[in-house]
Amino acid sequence: MTDALSFRVAVAADLPALVALLRDDDLGRARNPSLEEAAGAYERAFARMDADNHMVVAERARRIVGCYQLTFIQCLSHAGATRAQIESVRVASTLRGGGIGSAMMRDAIGRARARGAHMVQLTTDRRRADAQRFYDRLGFAASHVGMKLTLA
Amino acid sequence: MTDALSFRVAVAADLPALVALLRDDDLGRARNPSLEEAAGAYERAFARMDADNHMVVAERARRIVGCYQLTFIQCLSHAGATRAQIESVRVASTLRGGGIGSAMMRDAIGRARARGAHMVQLTTDRRRADAQRFYDRLGFAASHVGMKLTLA
Repeated sequence: MTDALSFRVAVAADLPALVALLRDDDLGRARNPSLEEAAGAYERAFARMDADNHMVVAERARRIVGCYQLTFIQCLSHAGATRAQIESVRVASTLRGGGIGSAMMRDAIGRARARGAHMVQLTTDRRRADAQRFYDRLGFAASHVGMKLTLA
Repeated sequence: MTDALSFRVAVAADLPALVALLRDDDLGRARNPSLEEAAGAYERAFARMDADNHMVVAERARRIVGCYQLTFIQCLSHAGATRAQIESVRVASTLRGGGIGSAMMRDAIGRARARGAHMVQLTTDRRRADAQRFYDRLGFAASHVGMKLTLA
């Protein structure tokens, strides 16, 4: 059956079909307004279907003491919501435990709010219970399983 | 202590400090070559510190039967590796269980390999054991916890 399938990158003309797929069950319909209800929001989201990606550095007394990667990913779901994603959180080894990590994550959450993101997300190694408690204190919920497939 | 911290988006001149942070423990040193060892790889990665984001559609007989979002995120770690991230996997409700999902994920993995990505990643709701088994069969390891903070 599946060998009759073909794949291609979506174009704007696919929007009605894409929104229909997003709404193709009860949960999807609750989260995703129809194309008409959204009044142009899906079209605007699709037109800027990009992602912004940067490293943010934390400095103290002109010395870089930490960094994290922050990526804003434009989505179609939720009528074109933006997700903010955190990766590569690093604090200088001699300064760990001093609150730099929390301050960096509050900075990330502030940048996400300023951007109008509807969610901040990250994954952390399941063996690192301390990290999970750290993110839990910042308000993150451990609601998902992070699955990785290494290619190289 | 942390109120003396300031935050800004990194610029190319920060690369030595960023690579030093990436290498600031045993695991980091094993994964990340030094700036000199990498021979320009970090500089090239930083210069294209963007992310490509698109929806891919699956078609059968000219009908769109599924879609997924695929985002390539340029990272600095691993000497400038690219991560491929999958979101918003959808199959038409009347066609579920017929292998379309697997075919879409194989398409995503193929696109990630073609792009030279070193990893494919996604998160799935922890309550959906069936989805975890599905990704496990495709070779994904449930190595991480996916943490989400809803803002809006």
